[in-house]
Amino acid sequence: MTFLYKADPSRGQQWAKLFAERAPEVGFRVWPDLGDAREVRYLAAWAPPEDLHTLLPNVEVVFSTGAGIDQFDLSLVPPHIPVVRMVEPGIVEGMVEYVTQAVLSLHRDIFTYGRQQAAHEWGPLPVLSASERRVGVLGLGMLGQAVLERLKLFNFRCAGWSRTPRDIDGVECFAGHEALAPFLARTDVLICLLPLTSATRGILDKRLLSGLPRGAALINVGRGGHLNQEDLLDLLHSGHLSQAILDVTDPEPLPPTHPLWTHPCVRITPHIASATRPDTAVEVVLENLRRHREGRPMIGQIDRGQGY
Amino acid sequence: MTFLYKADPSRGQQWAKLFAERAPEVGFRVWPDLGDAREVRYLAAWAPPEDLHTLLPNVEVVFSTGAGIDQFDLSLVPPHIPVVRMVEPGIVEGMVEYVTQAVLSLHRDIFTYGRQQAAHEWGPLPVLSASERRVGVLGLGMLGQAVLERLKLFNFRCAGWSRTPRDIDGVECFAGHEALAPFLARTDVLICLLPLTSATRGILDKRLLSGLPRGAALINVGRGGHLNQEDLLDLLHSGHLSQAILDVTDPEPLPPTHPLWTHPCVRITPHIASATRPDTAVEVVLENLRRHREGRPMIGQIDRGQGY
Repeated sequence: MTFLYKADPSRGQQWAKLFAERAPEVGFRVWPDLGDAREVRYLAAWAPPEDLHTLLPNVEVVFSTGAGIDQFDLSLVPPHIPVVRMVEPGIVEGMVEYVTQAVLSLHRDIFTYGRQQAAHEWGPLPVLSASERRVGVLGLGMLGQAVLERLKLFNFRCAGWSRTPRDIDGVECFAGHEALAPFLARTDVLICLLPLTSATRGILDKRLLSGLPRGAALINVGRGGHLNQEDLLDLLHSGHLSQAILDVTDPEPLPPTHPLWTHPCVRITPHIASATRPDTAVEVVLENLRRHREGRPMIGQIDRGQGY
Repeated sequence: MTFLYKADPSRGQQWAKLFAERAPEVGFRVWPDLGDAREVRYLAAWAPPEDLHTLLPNVEVVFSTGAGIDQFDLSLVPPHIPVVRMVEPGIVEGMVEYVTQAVLSLHRDIFTYGRQQAAHEWGPLPVLSASERRVGVLGLGMLGQAVLERLKLFNFRCAGWSRTPRDIDGVECFAGHEALAPFLARTDVLICLLPLTSATRGILDKRLLSGLPRGAALINVGRGGHLNQEDLLDLLHSGHLSQAILDVTDPEPLPPTHPLWTHPCVRITPHIASATRPDTAVEVVLENLRRHREGRPMIGQIDRGQGY
């Protein structure tokens, strides 16, 4: 029984070490060192190889090394093979850290103070209480919920929108297409944590973002494909949006000549908000191997119909 | 019975409105409109006037409008008059927001990513888990404790140092002069929340900061007078310290030609981490007026011997 890892090689070495300690009975290999390909039962990959079916004829489960599977071409994976996305506490911890930092930076005018510092200006700005700042999260999956739970502690006015109804204590929950407009109208800081599917690709466009109150800010920690970057630049230019913090772009890496790099109201980080942490990720993968052997549903197993 | 407010005039108007609503029986005046100075029983001020005793002969309590009273020349206030510093939830909320934002920015390399953005560089950096990041707070008063309670939730390795022993759940507590060296040796991010007294003026000097591990960062949200700014610049230059976030400087405002403004590893905000919020501050002041009338100890009443 072989487990094949096909993603970042240095992380692969960390996984190998953890597997050796915790599951020495599993043969662990890091791509491109496959050994006997017929022995590979499990594949963990950022994206599956194009020739998956012929290359690894006996693979039984495909794991995504990321929280999302939008980078997966599911048509490459035969329908009887379960696909599992990464649902592990390290991803949640990183996302909660990043979004809390981003929201507090906007809330406390840290970017404006940065511009003042560049001009050697000492100019205190009026302070708004967190209870007057309306934060809204698009997407109420595990990450969206964890982010809201943390932001609540700061007394932000929290709301969330999801496709299907949710009920979260202390969070104003909106659901479905009809509820999108009222959700946006009450949101000063919009955080995108949606999965990227055919239904959400390009969802952050001029139409949606114009529904935010004038002066609102955007934090995109979903995928670059959620955002229409031209529309964002237009809305920043017109002043309808005041600021954007983007951890994801389209494409990635963002080309050096792209205008987002130099816009004074845009902050970019290179897709680092949240990353799988080998220690906690391997723990969840080993639990899923047990579950698979015992015929129980795996943590993070995706619904191919919904695409997430 | 008159209450005189002598600090920022626009905030004074907010206080006046709140007093009119909540304690209409109290005559409220904003400096320099004293009315009959002999009727002034209570003074709220950032700093007392030099001729307090002759100007306001019947004053019974002096309130500081700030959390600290280092800006008070206590010798101007006759010894029988109680001096009360501002202990109110608005100050705590602001400080917790600011410090959380600062710690997370350092933890997640936000300043490095800012420099990369300026160079149009897409370069993910290795991520440390919060449980591997050692945060230490100098000063375990109300603010220091509130900050640590919030940072604990992110799983940072938290420690605190205070003059007298404290016991805080989940926080490694160090006390007294002898314990300062081991406290510093285990601290990657040092946060100063000490009161400014003759014993703490200039405490953040080359000797103390050199006790931090190489590459450590400093967040000063105490007072500018705590920090030897020349020593800080030397330690940043030598690489012993990696970054400093300063909300307070000496003097304030920081002069436009000061080298701190332009140092690439220094972030400056103009003393905005935490401000008294009129709404919550007036609530506490009114409670203290009741306590004073009933002869009970007031919230935030200072011990003149200790100076805080």
